[in-house]
Amino acid sequence: MGGRKLESMVIFAPNQNYIPYQFMQNLHQFQVTFESYLENNKFKKSPRELYEPSNYILSLGGKRIRPAILLAGHYLFDDEVQNSLPAAFAVELFHNFSLVHDDIMDAAPLRRGQPTVHNKFGLNSGILSGDAMLVLAYESLLQTESSQIVHLIKLFNQMALQVCEGQQLDMNFETRQNVSIEEYLRMIELKTAVLVAVALEIGALIGGAKKEDAKLLYEFGRNLGIAFQLQDDILDAFGDPKKFGKKTGGDIAQNKKTYLYLKVLEIAPTAMAEKLKALYTSQSMDEADKIRAVLEIFEQLNIKKLTEEKKEEFWKYSIQALESVNALPGRKSMLEKFASALMNRDF
Amino acid sequence: MGGRKLESMVIFAPNQNYIPYQFMQNLHQFQVTFESYLENNKFKKSPRELYEPSNYILSLGGKRIRPAILLAGHYLFDDEVQNSLPAAFAVELFHNFSLVHDDIMDAAPLRRGQPTVHNKFGLNSGILSGDAMLVLAYESLLQTESSQIVHLIKLFNQMALQVCEGQQLDMNFETRQNVSIEEYLRMIELKTAVLVAVALEIGALIGGAKKEDAKLLYEFGRNLGIAFQLQDDILDAFGDPKKFGKKTGGDIAQNKKTYLYLKVLEIAPTAMAEKLKALYTSQSMDEADKIRAVLEIFEQLNIKKLTEEKKEEFWKYSIQALESVNALPGRKSMLEKFASALMNRDF
Repeated sequence: MGGRKLESMVIFAPNQNYIPYQFMQNLHQFQVTFESYLENNKFKKSPRELYEPSNYILSLGGKRIRPAILLAGHYLFDDEVQNSLPAAFAVELFHNFSLVHDDIMDAAPLRRGQPTVHNKFGLNSGILSGDAMLVLAYESLLQTESSQIVHLIKLFNQMALQVCEGQQLDMNFETRQNVSIEEYLRMIELKTAVLVAVALEIGALIGGAKKEDAKLLYEFGRNLGIAFQLQDDILDAFGDPKKFGKKTGGDIAQNKKTYLYLKVLEIAPTAMAEKLKALYTSQSMDEADKIRAVLEIFEQLNIKKLTEEKKEEFWKYSIQALESVNALPGRKSMLEKFASALMNRDF
Repeated sequence: MGGRKLESMVIFAPNQNYIPYQFMQNLHQFQVTFESYLENNKFKKSPRELYEPSNYILSLGGKRIRPAILLAGHYLFDDEVQNSLPAAFAVELFHNFSLVHDDIMDAAPLRRGQPTVHNKFGLNSGILSGDAMLVLAYESLLQTESSQIVHLIKLFNQMALQVCEGQQLDMNFETRQNVSIEEYLRMIELKTAVLVAVALEIGALIGGAKKEDAKLLYEFGRNLGIAFQLQDDILDAFGDPKKFGKKTGGDIAQNKKTYLYLKVLEIAPTAMAEKLKALYTSQSMDEADKIRAVLEIFEQLNIKKLTEEKKEEFWKYSIQALESVNALPGRKSMLEKFASALMNRDF
């Protein structure tokens, strides 16, 4: 559950040098700060077998976008971002808990190019160490020194339940035929966007933001997360494989009901919609032929442009929310640039 | 993970009328209060597929010992036990989360005579609905109105991590040869006793107990939980099947490294210890013959009596702790009677 695409986009970029200057540079200081905190907070507790899988998955890297963005949320209001490090760790632990259990549910053998936890340590260790990481996330959050700690935990907890709900919806959609676009948007919001959103809100609150500013940042993150996922749907179908870092058409090959697919069903004449459904249920068809046929339908209906319009709608909402935030002078540009770079990426 | 035996002892008692008068009667009012709260708090949220397994496992019954004992902890200091109902629900949700994930790890087909969650709803639903129940436990606890809510969450969280550690130790012991008695006692403490202990502590604190009294109740619960598990080890080998409600020798058949087994390895002459190990690793032996041979070793070394002595040691610690608690006049007798009845049970 939760944000695998967000992660994979960053991690599997064809080579690290390609990452555009403006994309990560603005959050780089926070990534470095967090990475060093992580290094100093490896689990050394006993029994070793319980904590080793957590250290393992955390050591597989990742750009630490969620903790970095939490620290960035703090920095909008206050310099002492180190006070948000335990909360940033909580968010990263929660994310990794969700990856470990998600990989079991997907029977995924690899994560970030390495064996998944259940693949390396066994199913039972995958379940139990995931459970422990979820509990450790709360433990880390509880270390935060803030008069609003109860409110922070409530926000975190609500997010955690929503991510579970998003994962359940995603599982439901695999077997459901009649998924609406509205339901799809709600699913990606729950599964991916709310974690980014709550990371920003929590960081802001620890940094001393007013509740309304923190809530605006939540809206910034929520809309940005949805826009991001729509961009990912587009790139998966239309991206340049050399830049995207993986074969395009992967979602089509896996019969994923993306925004593009659902948009066809919404607007296509019946015959064309039926043809798309038939392609998605076909067992025997050659994969490359299938991808080509589906892309042709997307092109006939101008689906790429329609999806981009939807993406920009959410992106604009996110920027509007950010513009309304009352932060220290000059500090918002970092997140503005980050958001623009995320949207303009072609990988 | 956590307290399966405590549960099974109660649920699989041969018939409900057999349960001795003094055993549950003292907590009966709290069971009834909790059961009615549970009935009014069934999950009606969406997506249905996420919450249905939680309603299912909660509906399978159980004596609700943990929530009842939490309410009893509250009642020692204050009449308004309904203020502890959300915390009692948190404890029951946590217990059921652990049952669902534990059943997956044990590949158990049945729970309380009904299909386990993963058996009925599938592996992925078992994992995900278990995760949701853990999050819902925090959500319920967060509803508690108490100036000490942060402290309560910290206690709960520490317990949750300890239960994971206990489950990991139990898994480790399955393949380890050199488990010490000390390690075994620590494992049952973590896996079973700390949840009972923290339920009492949290209930007491919500009821307005001083921290030292709440901590004494924690010690009461912790020691009682360990004594209980030792009693369970004894009954599994020496209980009267008619009263115990299941075949005796189940632990032996499953090669479980119980206190009885580990005590033999500690005190037996080498030849006898080796014989026991051989019986436990034998693949071909008839089960009834194996149980008989192991019981013979237990009897030769007077293991039943030695285990009873250890059990009574912990039981005395628990009663001592309870005696030191400064509660409202006359209210401790309920828990004293409950503890004595638990220890004297022969089922």
